[in-house]
Amino acid sequence: MGRLRLGFSELGADAVLVSHLPNIRYLCGFSGSAGLLLLEPHATTLFTDSRYTFQARQEVAGARVHLAKRGLLRAVGEHLRKKRGRWKVAYSPVHLTVSEKQLLETNAGSRVRWVADGNAVEKLRAIKDPAELTRIREAAVLISGVFHRVLRLVKPGVTELDLAAEIEYRIKKAGSSGPSFETIVASGVRSAWAHARPTSKALSKGELVVFDQGAIIAGYCSDMTRTVFVGRAPSRARSLYQAVLDAQQAAKQAIRPGVTAGDIDKAARNSLKAQNLARYFTHSTGHGLGLEVHEMPRLGKGEPTVVQEGMVLTVEPGVYIEGLGGIRIEDDVVVTASGCEDLTTAPRHFIEL
Amino acid sequence: MGRLRLGFSELGADAVLVSHLPNIRYLCGFSGSAGLLLLEPHATTLFTDSRYTFQARQEVAGARVHLAKRGLLRAVGEHLRKKRGRWKVAYSPVHLTVSEKQLLETNAGSRVRWVADGNAVEKLRAIKDPAELTRIREAAVLISGVFHRVLRLVKPGVTELDLAAEIEYRIKKAGSSGPSFETIVASGVRSAWAHARPTSKALSKGELVVFDQGAIIAGYCSDMTRTVFVGRAPSRARSLYQAVLDAQQAAKQAIRPGVTAGDIDKAARNSLKAQNLARYFTHSTGHGLGLEVHEMPRLGKGEPTVVQEGMVLTVEPGVYIEGLGGIRIEDDVVVTASGCEDLTTAPRHFIEL
Repeated sequence: MGRLRLGFSELGADAVLVSHLPNIRYLCGFSGSAGLLLLEPHATTLFTDSRYTFQARQEVAGARVHLAKRGLLRAVGEHLRKKRGRWKVAYSPVHLTVSEKQLLETNAGSRVRWVADGNAVEKLRAIKDPAELTRIREAAVLISGVFHRVLRLVKPGVTELDLAAEIEYRIKKAGSSGPSFETIVASGVRSAWAHARPTSKALSKGELVVFDQGAIIAGYCSDMTRTVFVGRAPSRARSLYQAVLDAQQAAKQAIRPGVTAGDIDKAARNSLKAQNLARYFTHSTGHGLGLEVHEMPRLGKGEPTVVQEGMVLTVEPGVYIEGLGGIRIEDDVVVTASGCEDLTTAPRHFIEL
Repeated sequence: MGRLRLGFSELGADAVLVSHLPNIRYLCGFSGSAGLLLLEPHATTLFTDSRYTFQARQEVAGARVHLAKRGLLRAVGEHLRKKRGRWKVAYSPVHLTVSEKQLLETNAGSRVRWVADGNAVEKLRAIKDPAELTRIREAAVLISGVFHRVLRLVKPGVTELDLAAEIEYRIKKAGSSGPSFETIVASGVRSAWAHARPTSKALSKGELVVFDQGAIIAGYCSDMTRTVFVGRAPSRARSLYQAVLDAQQAAKQAIRPGVTAGDIDKAARNSLKAQNLARYFTHSTGHGLGLEVHEMPRLGKGEPTVVQEGMVLTVEPGVYIEGLGGIRIEDDVVVTASGCEDLTTAPRHFIEL
């Protein structure tokens, strides 16, 4: 929390209220679902409720635990109201709802001035330390292995839900605390839905199947997508696959400290543009990955965030053609001093089953 | 959406902006992860983005689909800015973040006045229609069966994560789209953590094990908890279990149209108080259940919401004693004309394995 404290003066704030749960976990270790962390010059307090008495005692490091009886926001507000003089408190307008903010203001009173925290904690979180990287790498290797073993179950007649169930079962059996998001298995025309949920639809010969899955290790996420073909693929499917793989490679080659997130997105998009496929690439090229499966930075068009060593990013271009299907290939990479290194290890070549 | 439109005048609003995804799904069927629904006097528009082009076309009923190119909030704001005269638009301060609200205001301009929607959609959602009830009932029966079949795997040496993996695998294999929340399996002293996540801890003889799990059917959730004992239980564990079961029964007997949510909570709490156990009951007695696993009403202390026929509620008292363990028993019930009916069907007697 030292680095965040150093940031106080930059924000011009006397204290920082952290409300986003992954930020709280990052700063003090608490993984419960109800918490507010208040950093003051000489004290750090985790506000939680009685459901988390034991868990907070076991998990929290570097903060006093306050069990709020009548709501966390009220407890924080009342705590701030007792301070002498004027206080400037940084908070996150991106995470606090309008109602929560009103409740805080009402309870803290008019001597507290609220200022935006400028995503201070998210910016710290974007650069992973070696311990964090170890966990993400472990989660990435785990999901790669799970996917590879589930591949042999892919055949006509098996349903999307069956395959999703197998993947999530094996994720847990392999020692992960669970999937980092709801596993996507989307086949045939449904593979053109970039965010389809698995259904009871059975796979048929001649279909593309998109698998998007991730695992959590000690709170840290992986996120990997592969696309395979059921049966023998026509040349159109092969060439589309190659175009997406080329775009992914182009994006990976663009990654190194000093480039912007937008530069990486542009590399993928330009590669697809050269194949007249850019219009089918309907989302951004990737995102940061850590305690959350989507975190800073976003690898989107024109994103100015400067890439730094230690960032972990997904690289996941895709093309989605209505009536035909979709292809997405996604890896997790860590930014190194001179480029990037793959963390996910499943094969990337075109697989026909 | 007719009922919500009728509510416009009550809110004194010219339009309603719905931002919470379950509310959007409830009103127009769209289940994607990016959407804003705007209800105007003569038009209803779903704002989403290009990732959901096909999905929106397939799912949405009763609304025009607008694909926003540069952000949904901006698109809604710009749409409202074009209106003539002053507009009063209801929104949900409970769901919109401070940043999102600012972005809306900036884009909509000063002729739009924003008023709180008073949880109008959540209030509609609290009363289930027969089609919704059928889905919840199906989800409740499914989770009851899954739990019952997993019971035979409970023995010393099996880990919490193993059991959670089995439960979630069987949920999907039974035809659910997935768990309605992360399955809890908490054994021994960890069972005293009301919201523990499963770990690689193995079960031992002489331990309580809390199972809290749910499934989703066509978007609708179930949520059920059972507590079992590994080996032969001491009389203290038996009497605690009976006290929790009695408290649950007392709460169920208090349920009927016209009572308040607080009355139900009080019935459970008073029952435990008579056994000197009220101080170990550290959460509320239950909550509404539907498209979300926690929705209105909350069955907490003094909650004034009046219970109505067609509400679906969880009833889940528990006691948590540090160092010893925890016991919780939770069923889903539907409020009938004269009382309530259980939807979850797993046995409630004390099980020693």
